[in-house]
Amino acid sequence: MSKPDAARTALIVHAHPEPQSFSTAQMLTAAGALRDAGYTVDVLDLYAENWPPALDRDDFTSTDGYFKPQAEQQRAAEEGTLAPRVQEHLDRLLTADLLVFSFPMWWFSIPAILKGWVDQVFVMGAVFGGDYGLFDKAALAGKQAMLLLTTGGPREAFQSGGTLGPLNDFLFHIHRGMFEFVGYQVLDPVVTYGPARMTDEQRTEALEAVRESVALVAGDSQLTVH
Amino acid sequence: MSKPDAARTALIVHAHPEPQSFSTAQMLTAAGALRDAGYTVDVLDLYAENWPPALDRDDFTSTDGYFKPQAEQQRAAEEGTLAPRVQEHLDRLLTADLLVFSFPMWWFSIPAILKGWVDQVFVMGAVFGGDYGLFDKAALAGKQAMLLLTTGGPREAFQSGGTLGPLNDFLFHIHRGMFEFVGYQVLDPVVTYGPARMTDEQRTEALEAVRESVALVAGDSQLTVH
Repeated sequence: MSKPDAARTALIVHAHPEPQSFSTAQMLTAAGALRDAGYTVDVLDLYAENWPPALDRDDFTSTDGYFKPQAEQQRAAEEGTLAPRVQEHLDRLLTADLLVFSFPMWWFSIPAILKGWVDQVFVMGAVFGGDYGLFDKAALAGKQAMLLLTTGGPREAFQSGGTLGPLNDFLFHIHRGMFEFVGYQVLDPVVTYGPARMTDEQRTEALEAVRESVALVAGDSQLTVH
Repeated sequence: MSKPDAARTALIVHAHPEPQSFSTAQMLTAAGALRDAGYTVDVLDLYAENWPPALDRDDFTSTDGYFKPQAEQQRAAEEGTLAPRVQEHLDRLLTADLLVFSFPMWWFSIPAILKGWVDQVFVMGAVFGGDYGLFDKAALAGKQAMLLLTTGGPREAFQSGGTLGPLNDFLFHIHRGMFEFVGYQVLDPVVTYGPARMTDEQRTEALEAVRESVALVAGDSQLTVH
């Protein structure tokens, strides 16, 4: 809670299949803003790593005959039978002071590859449950998390009374069900609405707005933490 | 809307890695109840099919150099360039009068493998957008969808004021953001709370409750439809 700024680490978990996408440019912009704010930034690019999304027996170096995912995770956390690729990501997760999910909103949630990362790396017995509880008793209590996303729909669609309705109603399952559940304090999401319909000039402006928002959130978060 | 009962089709999309799980038993029980109610039941078992969850270039028989997922889906719907495995599942989706998602709730949402099925098979230009609009203008308007799930937490945790809070607040992103968005009328979810902590006798009772709930929902839905 009282690390000097320079020692704070941000883990960005990024999920877009196209390296030239606006979403990827937005992630790189945010990474730069976090570095400017004194963070050491660790980027996990799930499509680039070809992360296998489905939680399965392959997550573990050994399994019993009957596969019960949560019980298997809890056993793996105790006995060290997580597959090396899962253990490595878990270690990076536990190290980070700030977790950022970077993604295009698909179906009002995170893309499957990122959902699969949560299914596999938010290990029962290592980030919640077992020696830990839920929410402020979970392993990541005292740390922070934020969403960095793009939408297909325009900003006005997500207002109260808009065609889609408030964005936070859709993000609730992530903010509450994933982040707060494992102990994180949730920071305001940073959102670019409808980049697909922007001109190049508008995209440049949008990236600048992202840089400013991330700087503000990162700056505020340090005030909160210190 | 006025098919005779015997011609109504239900597509169950199932996502649990263990064939011996309670979740799978619950799916089989629901399938039986739907058959008893006169449905022809089509089961898609995503883990058994080893469905690749990540939306990627592999979803298409050809892609442009720059990969823009929604634009690529729209082009594929127009030009017939969906990968055969996606087209086949899309055809089965469009045929079904009732869509059922069967899954263990992981992180207050659907497992990654099922999220990836939505990412890939709810094709822009074929189920919404393009010639279709959103919600009651989307391709699946007039059809019905329901969730069939298990939870880790007990029923009381999901009450107002419980440790987790109302289940429907978490399911909103699926009910509204996936089902209603593509036109479905949403039926009440059928839920078994905490089967992991049940005795064998309690599980048998829980499966009987599932059978009754599905029969009721399926019966009501036919009253609604005819």
